Amino acid sequence: MSAPRIHVINPNSNETVTRGIDDAVAALRFPGGPEIVCTTLKEGPIGIETQEHVDGVAIPLRRIVEADNASGAFVIACYSDPGLHVCREGTSRPVFGIAECGVLTALSRAERFGVIAIKQRSIARHIRYLRQMGLTDRLAGERPLELSVAESASDGTLPKMIEVGRALKEQDGAGAIVMGCAGMARHRKPLEEALGIPVIDPTQAAVTMALGTLQVAR
Amino acid sequence: MSAPRIHVINPNSNETVTRGIDDAVAALRFPGGPEIVCTTLKEGPIGIETQEHVDGVAIPLRRIVEADNASGAFVIACYSDPGLHVCREGTSRPVFGIAECGVLTALSRAERFGVIAIKQRSIARHIRYLRQMGLTDRLAGERPLELSVAESASDGTLPKMIEVGRALKEQDGAGAIVMGCAGMARHRKPLEEALGIPVIDPTQAAVTMALGTLQVAR
Amino acid sequence: MSAPRIHVINPNSNETVTRGIDDAVAALRFPGGPEIVCTTLKEGPIGIETQEHVDGVAIPLRRIVEADNASGAFVIACYSDPGLHVCREGTSRPVFGIAECGVLTALSRAERFGVIAIKQRSIARHIRYLRQMGLTDRLAGERPLELSVAESASDGTLPKMIEVGRALKEQDGAGAIVMGCAGMARHRKPLEEALGIPVIDPTQAAVTMALGTLQVAR
Amino acid sequence: MSAPRIHVINPNSNETVTRGIDDAVAALRFPGGPEIVCTTLKEGPIGIETQEHVDGVAIPLRRIVEADNASGAFVIACYSDPGLHVCREGTSRPVFGIAECGVLTALSRAERFGVIAIKQRSIARHIRYLRQMGLTDRLAGERPLELSVAESASDGTLPKMIEVGRALKEQDGAGAIVMGCAGMARHRKPLEEALGIPVIDPTQAAVTMALGTLQVAR
Amino acid sequence: MSAPRIHVINPNSNETVTRGIDDAVAALRFPGGPEIVCTTLKEGPIGIETQEHVDGVAIPLRRIVEADNASGAFVIACYSDPGLHVCREGTSRPVFGIAECGVLTALSRAERFGVIAIKQRSIARHIRYLRQMGLTDRLAGERPLELSVAESASDGTLPKMIEVGRALKEQDGAGAIVMGCAGMARHRKPLEEALGIPVIDPTQAAVTMALGTLQVAR
Amino acid sequence: MSAPRIHVINPNSNETVTRGIDDAVAALRFPGGPEIVCTTLKEGPIGIETQEHVDGVAIPLRRIVEADNASGAFVIACYSDPGLHVCREGTSRPVFGIAECGVLTALSRAERFGVIAIKQRSIARHIRYLRQMGLTDRLAGERPLELSVAESASDGTLPKMIEVGRALKEQDGAGAIVMGCAGMARHRKPLEEALGIPVIDPTQAAVTMALGTLQVAR
Repeated sequence: MSAPRIHVINPNSNETVTRGIDDAVAALRFPGGPEIVCTTLKEGPIGIETQEHVDGVAIPLRRIVEADNASGAFVIACYSDPGLHVCREGTSRPVFGIAECGVLTALSRAERFGVIAIKQRSIARHIRYLRQMGLTDRLAGERPLELSVAESASDGTLPKMIEVGRALKEQDGAGAIVMGCAGMARHRKPLEEALGIPVIDPTQAAVTMALGTLQVAR
Repeated sequence: MSAPRIHVINPNSNETVTRGIDDAVAALRFPGGPEIVCTTLKEGPIGIETQEHVDGVAIPLRRIVEADNASGAFVIACYSDPGLHVCREGTSRPVFGIAECGVLTALSRAERFGVIAIKQRSIARHIRYLRQMGLTDRLAGERPLELSVAESASDGTLPKMIEVGRALKEQDGAGAIVMGCAGMARHRKPLEEALGIPVIDPTQAAVTMALGTLQVAR
Repeated sequence: MSAPRIHVINPNSNETVTRGIDDAVAALRFPGGPEIVCTTLKEGPIGIETQEHVDGVAIPLRRIVEADNASGAFVIACYSDPGLHVCREGTSRPVFGIAECGVLTALSRAERFGVIAIKQRSIARHIRYLRQMGLTDRLAGERPLELSVAESASDGTLPKMIEVGRALKEQDGAGAIVMGCAGMARHRKPLEEALGIPVIDPTQAAVTMALGTLQVAR
Repeated sequence: MSAPRIHVINPNSNETVTRGIDDAVAALRFPGGPEIVCTTLKEGPIGIETQEHVDGVAIPLRRIVEADNASGAFVIACYSDPGLHVCREGTSRPVFGIAECGVLTALSRAERFGVIAIKQRSIARHIRYLRQMGLTDRLAGERPLELSVAESASDGTLPKMIEVGRALKEQDGAGAIVMGCAGMARHRKPLEEALGIPVIDPTQAAVTMALGTLQVAR
Repeated sequence: MSAPRIHVINPNSNETVTRGIDDAVAALRFPGGPEIVCTTLKEGPIGIETQEHVDGVAIPLRRIVEADNASGAFVIACYSDPGLHVCREGTSRPVFGIAECGVLTALSRAERFGVIAIKQRSIARHIRYLRQMGLTDRLAGERPLELSVAESASDGTLPKMIEVGRALKEQDGAGAIVMGCAGMARHRKPLEEALGIPVIDPTQAAVTMALGTLQVAR
Repeated sequence: MSAPRIHVINPNSNETVTRGIDDAVAALRFPGGPEIVCTTLKEGPIGIETQEHVDGVAIPLRRIVEADNASGAFVIACYSDPGLHVCREGTSRPVFGIAECGVLTALSRAERFGVIAIKQRSIARHIRYLRQMGLTDRLAGERPLELSVAESASDGTLPKMIEVGRALKEQDGAGAIVMGCAGMARHRKPLEEALGIPVIDPTQAAVTMALGTLQVAR
């Protein structure tokens, strides 16, 4: 029924981020499994940092979903889940948001979860979204790196992530950590090893759920 | 780090159910992917229908998890998630419960979800568990088939499932359905086609999450 | 500090609706009070009926807010509060959404409130938004007229509104009713008289709150 | 239908507070708008500081509401909303409580709100009331001035209010502040300027809602 | 420390109700245990049916508590818990409300509880109070007898109570019933036998908690 | 109907703890009242410190309840309420858990309660259970002694309990304290005197509720 292809859309126009996502989901490509294609929203901003960025890409994402008849599932690869509901409205095929899937996956791993945000100013937006999903009860806390999206792509970010992750674990009581950004996947494993608790890359979480949906639908 | 094997444990002693689970997860076996092994808890009851059944298999499940050093992840394949927390306490490897994963997966597909239970008397237990997880806000309703586990394995169950699923959709407002039993997977596709909304087999949902966890950990 | 002008923006392009809003807020124009200007979003759809409509007007609304330096407060006059957060991000002046203000005002009038929606399919979106605001605890229910926005502007709608309002009051226990649309203001008074409980026009509620904010800021 | 008069009742017997309220609502008096009359409950205590004070004025407030046929709406001007439900029971005209309206108005201005209380011992009562209203989800925090009601009327209170408001904003994450007392209105503007976030005077909020209700009912 | 006496105060002036309460708590009088004294609030109304009745007895109850130095604990025997907080403020000795204790006791007996109210119009007040206590999550429902307090004292009430209790059990899913009135104790046993689920007399529940508190404090 | 005997079961095999429980409930033994019998689960661990301990005693507790036809009510005397639901399933007689009853009793004494846990690692389990019961809204906090169960039986524990209790009161805002262990009863009174707020021994709370249930059922 559904075509065996997962379309992962990076809503920002930063090709480096898209390539990082592509690497992050490589482990979920199997012989005989769904193709996983990662693309960049050309008209997106260089990073999704504001509500204006979030709302500005909603309709462009919808257009991409509508125009793509070759994919069986979609993943919107930005931790604000821009356009998630409008894309769902435009297709009967499943559309996954990485923030939603990251949190849902964290709930399967620990009693309470923490979130590492890039920026302080995103946190209120994330909390509002968590409340919209009805999933606040098990939030231990969210703390910012206060790095730009660009900086978060540099190697110097890991020590800062460990510091923030440790605060979420030790001060806030988080038993699992969600990395609140699509561009941090390569830090997942070293961060998990440093913290000693599960660390979730939300894009991997979403592509996993898309993969399962497509496979069982065959 | 983790061994590439997922151990799916059927906590009841019904081999037919285990074979059904084995079929249900076949689509998630890939060349190069984790091995997925389905076993039967020999000392389990023929079906998990009461709190006594649920509590009676907790420690036996823990023993199985502790004794199995070859698996990288575990799935407890009963919709009451028996022994989930005691198994998690006994290992640093991830342990997934199918009720938890079924609900979490449904939350990624619809605003509100419904649950089809085998028996009326399980519903209070399920609701209590949902409250424990902090996930009640988006429950549309749970309705029973009022079939025995044995009956639920017969072909006559599909029409009844469609009837109950339709009530969940049309009267309760469910936008996705979770089949509240490990032994119903073969009905997933026809039920989804009949209802026109996503239907989640919880074992497939849990094995999917286990698969993703193992793959990204490599 | 703030300019004494309230800009009420109708996000759909239906001038008849804008005129109805203009009439609805006439009672809130006072000598010496803020000017209340009602405008139409020219690029908006003829009615806001889908998520696509909602998301499609967000950035255009932001542009209008940014370009208008003459107003001290804004009201977005659509019961889905499109663009509310992105507009707030773009100005330090207050921006009010009519859904938010309609519900908040209802909470000051009754223990539990009901909402009359135009369409069934809007209800899930409204409930999700109510959950985002953290205001679900006192919702008695929401019921649809199942009229088009155009039909809702006709005189034949009042009997249907009374029927739906009565169901909200008598079956769901609502002690106040919010009319879930910007274009129903002229039905407020007869509906209130027919039902015997407070009926809130959300645009009037929002303009009232804007008025108060501007006046006390002088 | 309703008479164009708003009766604001100060439930304490302190005429200085009543005069402050009268000044606070002056900006909401318009030519052609409702008359706004502020009176003092002569049998009230000099300040409402305890549960005994709160409960002691409930029935006297009811008697005033019942005896006043000339007003179309009532405002109970004490941040504990004494007698609110018993007054509502005694009339079909709207009765507003300033705590309720202050919080509802704050919810229209910010994601999360903070409350400045006069006394530490009032906070538990306020939180209990907030829970009764079902409005706790977006409370950032409540902090006391630890001033007597009399002291709170002196000019030395503003620096203390700024200090407490800053803690609510910076440590608790409040995006708007509700002044938890009827007698602080003259501090609203300088406090808002010092903090850089909206500050709500609850009496102004309630009178605004009363004004809107009366105007649209004409 | 505490005097071995429990003072049960009937806030209405109906001596027949007080005698019924006295009979209801007789089983909790033990040789060597606390004395249990039941008194009538002479200035109370003949029945507590309205918010005015509730608020009208708050301060008189406080006066009784303050004047009674011979009792170690107090029980306010009306299902609206009038004056509970103001009485607690006036003494360091424990004060129990029968609504609060009835609900808390029901929570120890069943997953979900139902309440039988005397009157429809009390239900909104009860629900508001339950929300104030933070105890709504496990409410199955509340349904009225629509009898006067006087009628509820007649023998004809039992069949009606069984009918309402059955609806709470079978339609609403209640696993225990709280009788929402101080004057129904003699129906507890036959109602419990007819329904087959626990039935809680709230006065007995409160006196039990008072008894335990006094005994362990010795 | 019910036999006048309360069976208090200590699920650990520590006879010293059982004797402490026996002393703790002595004050609730009355001439003519129910017999209160305290027994030790011989196959239990020496202390219930882990989820494995909790789950390991569930079925043995069920067997004891099933085999005891002489008791009218049961109390499971461990603050994790092991086996509570499976025991309830096995009998129509009431079964009380001390954690549940301790919390419910605290809710009758204060706006918010704190819990003193023996060990840090139990707290997540307790919070999960509190969420299961739907009783988290009024939790001020839970803090650990970080003593072994054995140490907690020594006289040196009181100063530590006072320190932890004071933090719960002063930093977390608790108005009552629940001692989160069956073996601390002898510290109740001195702790209460030191803190100046009610301190609840959960076993006494549960036996009190059992006593009331049996007495009114006669």
